[in-house]
Amino acid sequence: MSDKILFPSVNEQMDFIKRGTSEIIPEEELAKKLEKSLKENKPLNIKLGCDPTRPDLHLGHSVVLRKLAQFQKLGHQAILLIGDFTGMIGDPTGRNSTRPPLTFEQSRENAKSYVEQASKILDNEKTKLVYNSDWLGKMSFEDVIKLASRYTVARMLERDDFTKRYKGGVPISMHEILYPLAQAYDSVAIEADVELGGTDQKFNLLVGRDIQREYGMEPQVILTMPILVGTDGVEKMSKSYDNYIGLDDAPNDMFGKTLSIPDNLIYTYYELATDITNEELASLKSNLENDSVNPRNIKRDLARKLVDMYHGEGKGLEAQEAFDKIFIKKDIPDDIPEYTPTLEEIGLLDLIVEIKFSLSKGEARRLVQQGGVTLDSEKITDFKSVVKFDSEKILKVGKRKFIKLLVK
Amino acid sequence: MSDKILFPSVNEQMDFIKRGTSEIIPEEELAKKLEKSLKENKPLNIKLGCDPTRPDLHLGHSVVLRKLAQFQKLGHQAILLIGDFTGMIGDPTGRNSTRPPLTFEQSRENAKSYVEQASKILDNEKTKLVYNSDWLGKMSFEDVIKLASRYTVARMLERDDFTKRYKGGVPISMHEILYPLAQAYDSVAIEADVELGGTDQKFNLLVGRDIQREYGMEPQVILTMPILVGTDGVEKMSKSYDNYIGLDDAPNDMFGKTLSIPDNLIYTYYELATDITNEELASLKSNLENDSVNPRNIKRDLARKLVDMYHGEGKGLEAQEAFDKIFIKKDIPDDIPEYTPTLEEIGLLDLIVEIKFSLSKGEARRLVQQGGVTLDSEKITDFKSVVKFDSEKILKVGKRKFIKLLVK
Repeated sequence: MSDKILFPSVNEQMDFIKRGTSEIIPEEELAKKLEKSLKENKPLNIKLGCDPTRPDLHLGHSVVLRKLAQFQKLGHQAILLIGDFTGMIGDPTGRNSTRPPLTFEQSRENAKSYVEQASKILDNEKTKLVYNSDWLGKMSFEDVIKLASRYTVARMLERDDFTKRYKGGVPISMHEILYPLAQAYDSVAIEADVELGGTDQKFNLLVGRDIQREYGMEPQVILTMPILVGTDGVEKMSKSYDNYIGLDDAPNDMFGKTLSIPDNLIYTYYELATDITNEELASLKSNLENDSVNPRNIKRDLARKLVDMYHGEGKGLEAQEAFDKIFIKKDIPDDIPEYTPTLEEIGLLDLIVEIKFSLSKGEARRLVQQGGVTLDSEKITDFKSVVKFDSEKILKVGKRKFIKLLVK
Repeated sequence: MSDKILFPSVNEQMDFIKRGTSEIIPEEELAKKLEKSLKENKPLNIKLGCDPTRPDLHLGHSVVLRKLAQFQKLGHQAILLIGDFTGMIGDPTGRNSTRPPLTFEQSRENAKSYVEQASKILDNEKTKLVYNSDWLGKMSFEDVIKLASRYTVARMLERDDFTKRYKGGVPISMHEILYPLAQAYDSVAIEADVELGGTDQKFNLLVGRDIQREYGMEPQVILTMPILVGTDGVEKMSKSYDNYIGLDDAPNDMFGKTLSIPDNLIYTYYELATDITNEELASLKSNLENDSVNPRNIKRDLARKLVDMYHGEGKGLEAQEAFDKIFIKKDIPDDIPEYTPTLEEIGLLDLIVEIKFSLSKGEARRLVQQGGVTLDSEKITDFKSVVKFDSEKILKVGKRKFIKLLVK
């Protein structure tokens, strides 16, 4: 038997790769690279850069990681590039004390954690792990000057955020415009054929293309993926917005959080965060557009599927049953809002007014006195009660207003 | 006896230092530094950066070198900083093949030649010679990022030439905006108290101030000197404009070239290139404004003085006598224009037309036939003569038109 890797045909690969992408630049170069790879039986180097300062992965990260996994399934070489060089420098201005430089050990630990979580998506055996400090850390001032000479200031300032800040008089430190060059040089160092990233990375990925060309290399193709919107349906998924579904979230949390996404995100989550086929996606679309199908059921399918993906076949159904036991049996809807407390405890009436379930404390008091307020299904009669945020609780006011009180 | 250096008083020092300067920024800080130096009996570090890629010094370079020498005479520490780091990198884009990188040896050789020439102005025994490759060559990418983080892109682009190029769409390579930071870091490395430079260096010197402050150092005072205009009275003195008086020029050349400067430069040359006292300068000024004094005589004084300065007392008079022997005895004025040939030889009539001593070859021929054309005082009768540019010659056409034909 030969060592030939069984790459699918170029067309099959292109179809698979294009699913869910925002842009492939330039598409025809990707096709050519795939052709050459088929002909020479040589996998392409697919680069994905990771930031080791934020090692908690969520569904937002999964979008590009899953694209990397797809290349891997096609027989190509997935390269997880840990951007530890800049992480170990931290904030060189020293103005941002919340981002102290990572030590070598911390940086390696974060990377390990990142890779562990990513292993839920990637085949770790076949993933190449590289640290850019290995080459950037060895560069001298002279090397930096040579690298910098390959790019112009004007082009660098064309990056959206730089343009805005420059025009708006918001200072850009000179080291900030060196970072895209460092990231671009990574593509030279690992001889990337394709680089993946979110749409917000487009500019940086394109710099990589230019710098590779300047170093006499065939430029990489860049492939951008849409940014996943978080469970709030507004901001991009991020830990700092508290609108994320963590890859390490417990099955019940993952299930519950998925149910909390707005209906208009169901399709996107299916497209970007699951493996259902393009045919299934099409039928899903028509179902969602069909008024006789309840989107709530489709969302429950999605939630089960995600739990299955990250916790194993069957865990989705278990999570659903546990969820129903708590919520449906107690007549609590499954997509209620959440309240994140800022204090350790608060007076009940103040809380009711703050969450806008009542317009005044007088009205709130009457609601309590009439027996219309329950906490975890228990009726509260004393309007002077104080609510402690020491455990998750469901507050119900009147017949239909529910809120989940999170722990402080 | 104590080791106390005999610094003059702060006021005396300030008067001496201010002579001929364009700007001192800020002047009050210089006074404070001088005061402290007096009090602590500690000389100030005076920095002058030199470009070792152009080791031929002329009177233009002498302006800042002489200012450095003045500080030295006041008892301060003159530091000649050889900017060999960038010279050894050359043009990193490789587009400018006329500026290949210097080897370490070439760079040191150029520096040696620079210092030898500068020794006509500085006291070499007391001059500290440093090479910036000693620290810049050891900087890592991380060090560069830390340095770059101390300055903003917007401020860098405020440099006149950068502003113009950026606005005019003329590319600025990213390494170009790193160079002023490197130069600024030199001031940190050598703990400069004062940095000298031409007015065209003002921006770069100010960056040094900022960067020193960012590194927790008392910022240097910057002192700029006017750019000396060349013998043509138009462009700045420069080898490439061929309007320079070299410090190594032979006495006769130095004398002759000085006489060729336009009268309106006499005062400036005295002020910036000689040591005459401020009182003498003032009387010179009134002489120049006095119609009864022939500026030609003042210029001859200047020429003698410059030759004395660079070749030794008495050499000026010798040069003047040699000059007069050739020119005055032959009734040739001493400030005639020069012609730089582009060919090895040229027909006499063509030459006369080219230098615009005649409007047509017909008229030129008549002039020759009438005996009105001499070459080195010898009458030319054959209008078909060919002039060879193998030695310097004086061509005279008619009664008053003289030109010095230079060697090709």
